[in-house]
Amino acid sequence: MNQVNRRITLASRPDGYPTAANFKLVEDEVPSPGPGQVLVRALYLSLDPYMRGRMSDAKSYAAPVPIGGVMEGGIVGRVVASENPKFKLGDHVEGRLGWQDFGLSDGRNIRTIDPKAGKLSLNLGVLGMPGLTAYFGLLDVCRVHAGDTVVVSAASGAVGQVVGQIAKIMDCKVIGIAGGKAKIDYITHELGFDVGIDYKFEDLDAALDKSCPDGVDAYFDNVGGKVADAVFRHLAYKARIAICGQMALYNVDTPEPGSRNLRFMLVSRAKMEGFIVSDFTDRWPMGLKRLARWVREGKIKYREDVVEGLENAPSAFLRLMRGENFGKLVIKIADE
Amino acid sequence: MNQVNRRITLASRPDGYPTAANFKLVEDEVPSPGPGQVLVRALYLSLDPYMRGRMSDAKSYAAPVPIGGVMEGGIVGRVVASENPKFKLGDHVEGRLGWQDFGLSDGRNIRTIDPKAGKLSLNLGVLGMPGLTAYFGLLDVCRVHAGDTVVVSAASGAVGQVVGQIAKIMDCKVIGIAGGKAKIDYITHELGFDVGIDYKFEDLDAALDKSCPDGVDAYFDNVGGKVADAVFRHLAYKARIAICGQMALYNVDTPEPGSRNLRFMLVSRAKMEGFIVSDFTDRWPMGLKRLARWVREGKIKYREDVVEGLENAPSAFLRLMRGENFGKLVIKIADE
Repeated sequence: MNQVNRRITLASRPDGYPTAANFKLVEDEVPSPGPGQVLVRALYLSLDPYMRGRMSDAKSYAAPVPIGGVMEGGIVGRVVASENPKFKLGDHVEGRLGWQDFGLSDGRNIRTIDPKAGKLSLNLGVLGMPGLTAYFGLLDVCRVHAGDTVVVSAASGAVGQVVGQIAKIMDCKVIGIAGGKAKIDYITHELGFDVGIDYKFEDLDAALDKSCPDGVDAYFDNVGGKVADAVFRHLAYKARIAICGQMALYNVDTPEPGSRNLRFMLVSRAKMEGFIVSDFTDRWPMGLKRLARWVREGKIKYREDVVEGLENAPSAFLRLMRGENFGKLVIKIADE
Repeated sequence: MNQVNRRITLASRPDGYPTAANFKLVEDEVPSPGPGQVLVRALYLSLDPYMRGRMSDAKSYAAPVPIGGVMEGGIVGRVVASENPKFKLGDHVEGRLGWQDFGLSDGRNIRTIDPKAGKLSLNLGVLGMPGLTAYFGLLDVCRVHAGDTVVVSAASGAVGQVVGQIAKIMDCKVIGIAGGKAKIDYITHELGFDVGIDYKFEDLDAALDKSCPDGVDAYFDNVGGKVADAVFRHLAYKARIAICGQMALYNVDTPEPGSRNLRFMLVSRAKMEGFIVSDFTDRWPMGLKRLARWVREGKIKYREDVVEGLENAPSAFLRLMRGENFGKLVIKIADE
């Protein structure tokens, strides 16, 4: 092959919000697969909030990307060379191969996907990691049931939009918190959320008082910070809280102090749990099957924010960090 | 009867730490029991941190004491008149009859106790509400098992001392956090805790690093505030946190802001739950039986801080609020 493999690497660790200078695009030769290996041509790259954690060397649930290393990320791609009998030329796969045109895999961190099942990029969204995060976080961690009042933050994001729609499938009352009129209109008019609260313009306490007169039974937290603080003040008896993300804290070096909320846990006899999607790997196939059915049946809609060109991934990621994306952020790297 | 019923009432709601002026001792006639009622002569009154919550009209899990009302509290006493066939003259009972010499009950909020089973006052401590709080909080909420590293705050208090000793019975490593050398010596030398951390003089992070090299599997939180913040920074994977009390916040009108700790819940995939002992009423008899056996077998020791005289209850309560008690605080109201 005489193609070039463009790779976006971590040039330096961010101090607060990342900047373009934290990334470096390097060009390498396209590697050839060794015995057992598969070479994948990336078509779509998923950009997700968790990546901010990998840029930092603070203790987390996964190791950081080393300086000079390729940024971690999930892609959908096509097998262009294979020395592994499980994958053949032309197969479509999904896996964690990073921000680059071509990735090598030993076959253990990729899975074959069916291109006829739906748009390829959905395997990075509603039919991928974000969809599964919503599914297990809402059903296994929040343990919602019909009639519950469910609040989700970052409600129009890749995870939040699925959380709210599954909660609606289960006959819950769903309140989504997001920033800006377009997002609020989307979740209420397009996705069927009962209430949208614009945290940028509304008084959260007043809006939660009005929309959750019996309190919040389940809170799916993608953001933390002041939004979470407000929801804590409205917990119902035996509320369940799933801690999925803490977007409000990712880009601040020294988080501002916040409300001391444990008292509300006691008063409401609430339960809180932190989780990540890989806690549930053994049931991913079941989750994906159900999500696919709901998408087919039109019960789960989705919105993607597609940006063209691997070289634009860093600037798109900065938009994501500022909440300026609208829907699941995906980089289109190459034509299908 | 020509005796006087001294009653300590709530004169005003505290602003921060309570003061003597928030209480008022009034003298009334001793009431006579009506049909179905029992008159109880209080012998011991329990003083507990939860009472601070009842003095305030902030939202909580129980209604506040009204201004002019008798302070709420558990007592052990003797039946001195009965119009209820279930209780006879001379029976010993335990119940929530308040800060007063004599209390009337319809029989539903008192239970008969066996004076031969042990010291009467223990029914207000290790064999009463604090012991049961420790039992269910540690076993049902923290779900500890052998080998766990368990941290408990307010470790020499009525609840904390029992938490640590049950954890030792279960072969856990137990770290108690308390204030002052006498309390640390007590929990480590007398009660068998593995480590005592003096939050007044030690650096909590350094002490937790040293005593919990594999992290904290279970945290029984009686205090909240900065002590809880430090423990959050040391959670082990799948840690469990029981929120039992928030002593650090009870006496501050506007709590100082604290660390934003939800990130640690996520990183450690931890679980947190708020609880109160009355969530487990159906299993109190079983819990009391086990606690009584452990006390008989010498596996649970206890320390009481007994103050003579109902009139001294307010000043003793102020000591409790400042953490100046040492062991279960009990007011002796009358001779047995």
